[in-house]
Amino acid sequence: MKAKFITFEGSEGSGKSTQSKLLYQYLRARGFKVIYLREPGGTKISEKIRAILLDAKNDSMLSACETLLYMAARAQLAAEVIRPALRQGKIVICDRFLDSTVAYQGYGLGIDINAIKRMGNFSTQGLNPNLTIFLDLPIKEGLKYRKHGKDRIEKRSLAYHNRVRRGYLSIAGQQPRRVKIVKVQADKNLTQGNIRKIVSNFFKLS
Amino acid sequence: MKAKFITFEGSEGSGKSTQSKLLYQYLRARGFKVIYLREPGGTKISEKIRAILLDAKNDSMLSACETLLYMAARAQLAAEVIRPALRQGKIVICDRFLDSTVAYQGYGLGIDINAIKRMGNFSTQGLNPNLTIFLDLPIKEGLKYRKHGKDRIEKRSLAYHNRVRRGYLSIAGQQPRRVKIVKVQADKNLTQGNIRKIVSNFFKLS
Repeated sequence: MKAKFITFEGSEGSGKSTQSKLLYQYLRARGFKVIYLREPGGTKISEKIRAILLDAKNDSMLSACETLLYMAARAQLAAEVIRPALRQGKIVICDRFLDSTVAYQGYGLGIDINAIKRMGNFSTQGLNPNLTIFLDLPIKEGLKYRKHGKDRIEKRSLAYHNRVRRGYLSIAGQQPRRVKIVKVQADKNLTQGNIRKIVSNFFKLS
Repeated sequence: MKAKFITFEGSEGSGKSTQSKLLYQYLRARGFKVIYLREPGGTKISEKIRAILLDAKNDSMLSACETLLYMAARAQLAAEVIRPALRQGKIVICDRFLDSTVAYQGYGLGIDINAIKRMGNFSTQGLNPNLTIFLDLPIKEGLKYRKHGKDRIEKRSLAYHNRVRRGYLSIAGQQPRRVKIVKVQADKNLTQGNIRKIVSNFFKLS
C-alpha cells in the first residue's frame, strides 16, 4: 500500500480530535506506520503560530492576517513533517488542513475562496489529502460541548459557524471522491465504525 | 497636501532605520502629522509574528512559511494602522514593506515573484507606497556593521544578500517613479540631505 494522507475536518464539537485519534490508534494496532498531526501546529514553528492564532486576547486580528497565519503554519508542517513521512511510506492523519481555511476563513469570514486556494497551493506546494473525513453535525449540538474556555475562533457567532458548515458541505459536494461526509452519532463508536468502513474501502480501492 | 505613504528599503547595514527616523523627525519638526512604523511589527499581533521571524533559533523555517509570516504581519499593520492613519491625512513612514518580501524572499530565496505580488495584494488589500526610498550600498560594506548579534535573516550568505540587492535595483528599474535609489554616503547627513530633496520634490509634485 502506498503512503496516504488522510485529513479530518468538521465544525466545533464534532468530535474530530477524538475520532481522528481513534483511527490513528486503530491503524497503528493493525501494524501500519502512521503519524498523527493537528493543525495549526505539528512543528516547533507552527506551534508558535498556533499560540498567536488561538489566543483569545488577539481579538483585533484581521481576517487576512488570520488566513496568512494558518497558511504559514501549514507551509512549515507540510514541508517539514507531512512530505517526509509520505516519502517514507507512512500514513499521515491530520486533524484539519487546507479545507479548514476554505471553510472558516472563506465561507465563514468571506475571504475570496480562489485567493485562499492559490495561497493554499503556495503554502503546501501542491500537497493535497488523498482522503478527507468531514464529521458533520448540526452546529447547535456541536457548540454546546464548548461552553467554557472557548478559543478565539470558537467564540464566533452561531451564524458564522453555520456558514462554515455549509462551506464544508459545498467542498464535499465539489469533491465527492476525496471528501466523505460522516454524520456524527451520539455513540462515538458508531461514528468510528463508519469512518473505518470508509478508510478500509479507500485502502482497497487505492 | 494629501496623506502619503513613504517606505524605506535597503540591505542590511544601509542605515535604513537611522535615515527613516531622521526623516520622521524632520517632517514632524516642520509641523506635519507623521507616524513612524517598522516591518515586521507595528501592531501587537505583528510584533508577535516578528519575534518568530527573527528568532535565530527558528533556523528550520522554510521559505514559504517565512514569506507567509511576513505577509501576515503586513496584513495586520496595513489594516490596523497604515490605512487609518492615511485616512486621517497623516504621513506614514514605514521601515520596509512589500518590496522587502519581493527582494528578500523572491530574488533572495527564489520564491516565485508573481506569487509574492499576488499574496502581497491580498495582504495589503491593494495598499501601495506612494514613494519608496531605496538606500543602496555595496553588500560587503553593509554587512561589516553587523558582525555581532545577527538575526536569522542577517546570518545568510553574502551571495544571498547580493541577490537581494540586485532584486531591489530591479524593482527600482521597473518602477522609477515610485522607487528612488539613494546611494549611502559615509556621512549620514549627506545621505539624509539627498533623501529630503527627493521627499520635498515628491511633495511639490503630488
